[in-house]
This record gives sequence, structure tokens and C-alpha cells, in this order.
Amino acid sequence: MTIENTALLTDQYELTMVSAALRHPMAHRPCVFEVFARRLPDGRRYGVVAGTGRILDELSRFRFGEDELAVVGRFLDSDTVAWLRDYRFSGDIDGYREGELYFPGSPILTVRASFAEGVLLETLVLSILNHDSAIASAAARMVSAAAGRPIIEMGSRRTHERAAVASARSAYIAGVAATSNLEAARTYGVPSAGTAAHAFTLGFSGPQGPDEKAAFAAQIDALGIGTTLLVDTYDISQGVRNAIDVAGPGLGGVRIDSGDLGVLARQVREQLDSLGARDTKIVVSGDLDEYAIASLRAEPVDTYGVGTSLVTGSGAPTAGMIYKLVEVDGLPVAKRASHKESKGGAKTAARLARPSGTIVEEVLYRPTDGPPSANGFSLRPLQIPLYRDGDPVQDLPTLSDARDYLADALVSLPWEGLGLSHGDPAVPTRYVLG
Amino acid sequence: MTIENTALLTDQYELTMVSAALRHPMAHRPCVFEVFARRLPDGRRYGVVAGTGRILDELSRFRFGEDELAVVGRFLDSDTVAWLRDYRFSGDIDGYREGELYFPGSPILTVRASFAEGVLLETLVLSILNHDSAIASAAARMVSAAAGRPIIEMGSRRTHERAAVASARSAYIAGVAATSNLEAARTYGVPSAGTAAHAFTLGFSGPQGPDEKAAFAAQIDALGIGTTLLVDTYDISQGVRNAIDVAGPGLGGVRIDSGDLGVLARQVREQLDSLGARDTKIVVSGDLDEYAIASLRAEPVDTYGVGTSLVTGSGAPTAGMIYKLVEVDGLPVAKRASHKESKGGAKTAARLARPSGTIVEEVLYRPTDGPPSANGFSLRPLQIPLYRDGDPVQDLPTLSDARDYLADALVSLPWEGLGLSHGDPAVPTRYVLG
Repeated sequence: MTIENTALLTDQYELTMVSAALRHPMAHRPCVFEVFARRLPDGRRYGVVAGTGRILDELSRFRFGEDELAVVGRFLDSDTVAWLRDYRFSGDIDGYREGELYFPGSPILTVRASFAEGVLLETLVLSILNHDSAIASAAARMVSAAAGRPIIEMGSRRTHERAAVASARSAYIAGVAATSNLEAARTYGVPSAGTAAHAFTLGFSGPQGPDEKAAFAAQIDALGIGTTLLVDTYDISQGVRNAIDVAGPGLGGVRIDSGDLGVLARQVREQLDSLGARDTKIVVSGDLDEYAIASLRAEPVDTYGVGTSLVTGSGAPTAGMIYKLVEVDGLPVAKRASHKESKGGAKTAARLARPSGTIVEEVLYRPTDGPPSANGFSLRPLQIPLYRDGDPVQDLPTLSDARDYLADALVSLPWEGLGLSHGDPAVPTRYVLG
Repeated sequence: MTIENTALLTDQYELTMVSAALRHPMAHRPCVFEVFARRLPDGRRYGVVAGTGRILDELSRFRFGEDELAVVGRFLDSDTVAWLRDYRFSGDIDGYREGELYFPGSPILTVRASFAEGVLLETLVLSILNHDSAIASAAARMVSAAAGRPIIEMGSRRTHERAAVASARSAYIAGVAATSNLEAARTYGVPSAGTAAHAFTLGFSGPQGPDEKAAFAAQIDALGIGTTLLVDTYDISQGVRNAIDVAGPGLGGVRIDSGDLGVLARQVREQLDSLGARDTKIVVSGDLDEYAIASLRAEPVDTYGVGTSLVTGSGAPTAGMIYKLVEVDGLPVAKRASHKESKGGAKTAARLARPSGTIVEEVLYRPTDGPPSANGFSLRPLQIPLYRDGDPVQDLPTLSDARDYLADALVSLPWEGLGLSHGDPAVPTRYVLG
């Protein structure tokens, strides 16, 4: 299935709302829609915004061609179909950068458009932000836990085949060093990595039994001695001996994918050192998450390979962001049903920091009011322009910018904000809404 | 980003393994690869196979064109690039039908091909099966819990935009009645549904405050009185009064999206009945999962709308299936590292059932041995041919077949197998491997 056109990556009710609205001047009222998360996933201290760059790409192809119109024409009247045929988003969008931290209530994206134009974007915008931010938020915790050691993302097989590509992109923003996913390498330029699986070693078995050395020799023949050999298909100690026998002490690395990784890393390090392979790196993988990574901090591990937990958001597979209509014709609007009260009206945000750079507060305020007094703290506005009059703003931050940006932002968290344990958001959100 | 070609939706190491293998006769040895799950997600009683139909589609486009070859040429030698240029899968695949139940160890897919041809498919095959089966497995529990009442899948915004399309497809296999996702309606013919969100009602607010009646009138004007009106934007009782005032007692339905849904459903039912709207249906939505659905069984709910929990697999976002090389040149192979021992050799499976139809056991056996004695039970082989000599088999089951198939299969579970509480797999897996 190839989707040239992204307009049907949406919920039917966005279209039926447009249809109903178009019978009324309401469809053309200037509106403000806001994307935010009411709360962070359970116990998380911060979230990481990711996906904004993909929104730009997918919105540029959000068009109703004749194929799409035929589908929506099954349940829409002809006036609505005609309006959709001409649909081009013509509004403004502001939002948090990719790689920016966010907290409960942070206005991550603000869409200014007519009701009909703005409501149409809800599903696609949320799909992208909820997925990509969930992955980036989990990956950032893993990168923190790895404390400078590189992580390779290798989770493609544990998530939808195209979500895998977006996951690799989000993980890269979060500071992961490389991905196993080749489409992410092609589309986004994420560095790719990978050498061999157990199947490769098993494939050299014959009537005389396993032949691990033959497998290692073939791999080195193809990939050179800088490669990483997987040493735990049979006996790990023998695997390490075989690896150095075949490659010599200049072998790039060995990978351990099962067992008690801490104990094994120590044993393998001693064995490699005793064989003179002091520069051979140790890569560990196998059901790692941020807690397992942290628990290996004192062990002689050089690189982590992380799969399932990363691409599934480590317990929080979606960021829970919502897309709310907050202003119509310049007046705030808000739902008033039980325990889901929203704060109406357009908002923007700034982050207050001490002179040391440590952040202390997320402040939400009316764009018309300007930022509140900083009282000796530094104050940094958080939204940047993304679209103006339906066109993407020029020179938006790149993927590499987002990655650098997040690395700096994480340093600005109060120390407890980087803790892996469950707790409150690292800084409070304050509403100065007059 | 449009991906015509699916060959890069894979891990780099599949390609480096091919490159290393091609320097050795091993690349061309006949191999058997098997997809299975070592265990079900924590406490689940059964899994549901989904994704097989999508594998057929994506494999047909698994080709290395010049663009893809340029990417893999960055790290592969020219002989491997030349081999990939000509790559067409030429092997056989057998597998469980879509909509089939599976249990720990069930050989869900068996790929027979040369090492090089077979290893290449690992990532893509697992991505599809792990995602789609996770969603179908969760959705099937929700459908069971709904006990005949229809469920509408509306989770697109809570998952990657293309995973959303596959999720809608998987949910449909599981018995969900409809989806909000329009691309799933186009691509797979899943029935679509949806009417309006809170934003629509809020959009009619003006300087005089909310105007819920104007919103309802506009919706009915566009969609007719058979539509479903969302009544909880402001006060629910007033919302119901407004709905019937505007639509009359012939209104199709009302939707409640927040609050204590059980209490509210009862109140709203009484109110609708007192207004003469006895046939107006009640749709509930808002953070429902299989447990919340079950808890509403005694309440006057007509339809459930389910989002987040469905598209994230209700706590199990990936099925944890693996793709293992089990046979080379007719000889079993297996990894022998700590606590990850696999049973080597090609296997197929049959399910034993009592005369009543209730299943009692999943039996795995060697295809060369034929099924074991059934001892008075009925015995149904579980794998069907999917590919022969690189071509899809004709007349494979359709999506609708898969849905019917699962509905029947669920009836065959022992009664405790349909329980929502945590427990063991509904039937044991027995290995008869000679």
C-alpha cells in the first residue's frame, strides 16, 4: 500500500464536522487549536517533543485528489467534496521545536486557521506528535541512563514497519547514536549499524555440528576485523576464544545478547584483555530498557543495543497529547464537563531558568499579553513560527539541530528531573492567563 | 515520505549477513526459518494472528531498485549489491491463517528458502506480525468483553499515522465493527464511522456564550437525524434535552465521552426514554479498555468507542514474535546459550478439540512425521500454504474470512480462556518432535 497522499490518514468525524460546519458561517470563523498533554505518562519527569519535522512533510501532501474524494464522497455532500477538492491549509502554526522538553499543559503546537481548515488537521497532527514524542521521551531516558556510552536502536521488528522508521528518527533526536533501520538511514540520514544475528552462526552448522569459527571467518572476510562478532550462540567463553582466534586481538567488538549481561560483560572483558584484545569493544543487547541500562553503568560495557522498550515507549507507547479548540473569533472557549476542564484561550509559553541555567518553571501566558516578569530569572519563549499563511517557514531547525537542542535542554533540568524513578514533573507549570 | 519499495524497511544486519554468507556456499543452503512467540504477553490466555495479508502485499514490493542499492552500497561490496539487484524471493511460506489463535511456540510462519533469501525477510515479516497480532489480540479481548455490542475503533490519533491504518485492519479481524480511519476504509474496506467532536460544539460559541442547539441543528442538517450527537460538551442533562429538542425523538444516538460512564449511561437512558426517544442509542467513549468495557456490561450502553488502549495493544504493544533459523540442509539447528534454548528443526502444528468443539491442546510435530494420533479428539492442522516458489498461493483467505474465522475460533476456547483476568495460556502446547 503506497500512500502518496496523506489526506485519508484521518478520522471520518473531521470530515463530517467540516460538512456540518460549511452550512453555517462558523466554518470560516478564525479559530485557535492547541496541542498539549494534560499530564506526562505515569511518573515521568519530562517529555520530549518530536514529530514536528514530519508534520511539515505530511501536511505538504495533505490533499484530496480524485481517489480520496471518491472515498469521502460516500458519506459527504457534494458541496463539501467541492470544498475539499480545493483544500489547502492557509493558516499559521507555531510550536515547540523538536528536541524541546515539554511538561503538562505546554502548548506544543498552536494552529490558527478557520474552523474547517484547522479541524481537518487534528488526527494527522496528533498521530505524528503522539507517536514520535512517546519514542523520543523514552529514548531520552535511556540516553541519560547510558551516561555517555552509545546506544544503537534496533527495535524495527517490534513495531509497525513504518512506525519503525519514525522511531529511529525520534531516537536519533533523543541522542541515540545509530539505528538498525535502513529506511531511516535513507530518509533521514540517521547513521545505521548492524553486523550479524545468531542465524548467521547457526547457518554454518553441518553434519559435524556447529562451526562458529567458519561463521566468524566469513563475517570478517566480508566486513573486516573492525566488525562486531556475536559470541553467545553456543558457549560464550568458547565464542570469545573463537572470535579472537579468527580475528586476532584487533577485533572491533563482540556482542552478548542473552544471560546476565553484567556478569557476562565482566567475564568477557577479562577474557578479551587476557587474550590481548584490550581495545575490542563489548556490545550488549537483549530486552534492555532504561533501568537495565542504568544497572550496567559500573560494568565494562561499551555500547548498548536497545529494541522493544525503545520503540514501544518503555511503558508509554503514546504521549497522550490532545488537539483542542481554545479560541473562536478571538473569544476563549472550553469544554465544561466533569473533570476534563480545559483552560480556554490561546496560550504561549516561556521557560524560566536560574542564572546557572537550571530551569525552574514553565509559564503559560496570553500571546497578546507578552511574557510575565521574570523576577531575576532568565526567560526563554518556547514557541517558534512553523507555518505562515499556509507555507512552512524557511530555515526551520534540522534533525541535527533538534538533537543538539535536546542535549542542551536535558542539562538544564534540575538534578532530580533526570532521575529514572517515578515522580512529579521536573518543573511546575504556571498559568498567567489574566 | 513515500515508500514504493519496501526493501529498506529492514535492519542493516540482514544485509551484512547476506554479504558475508555470499562468500561461502552457506548462502545457498536450503534453510527453514520459523516465526513463533516464546510466550504470550503477561497473563494473556491466547494470541490472535494478524498481518499475514499485509505480508503478502509488502513482500510483493520487496525489491532493491537503484535508489535502495545506492543506500546499501554504502556498506556492502559490489557482488552483494549485484545479488540484491536480482533478488526475488523464490521460496515457500506456510503459516497460520489470519484470525487464527496462537499459543506459546505455535509456528505462526514457516519460511523455506536459501539462507540468503530467507534471512532478508526477517525484519519486515516480524514488524508486520508483531504489530498487527498485538493489536488483534487486544481487540479480541475487547470484543469478547463487549459481549455482542458493537465497538468502533477510534484510536488513530494515539499511534503512528500508518500504524493506525494497520490497527484498524487488525481490529476489524478481531470483530470490531467499524473504524474512524478513512485510509483503512479505502485500502481494506473496513466500515468507517464518526460524527463530531467537542470542537464542533465549541465552535458555535459566540459573545453570548455557548450555543449547543445551533451545533446540533447544523449537524442534523448535514448528517440527518440518524446521526449521533455528542452531549457532554457542557452539561449532559441539558445536552440530552437540547439534542431531542432539535432532532426529535427519532435521533439516532448520543455520545458520552467523559465522566462515570456507567452512571451517566443510566441517567441518559432514563432521560431519553422519558423524552420518548426510546430507540436513540447511547455510545460511550473515553479511555475504555477491555476491563472498562466489561464493567459496563450491565449498563444501557449500545456502542463502545475505543481508542488508545486498542491501538497500543492494551499493555502489550508488541507480540514478541521471533524469526529463528531452525533447519539447515535438512538438519535441525538451535542456539544453545543460557535460558534461550530453542527447539530446532522444522515444525508444524495441529489443534486438538473435544467432540463439543472445545480445544484442548496445541500439538507441534515434524511435517515429515505427519500429525500424531488424536486419541478420539478431532485434529485440525493449522498451517496453510501462503507462497510456493516465490509466488503467493491463489485464493488465500480474505479479511472477511479472517474475521469469521476468529469469531469461530474464540467459541472453541475453554471457558476460562475468555477470562480477562491474568492466567496461563488457554491450552497447553505439546511438542511431539521424535
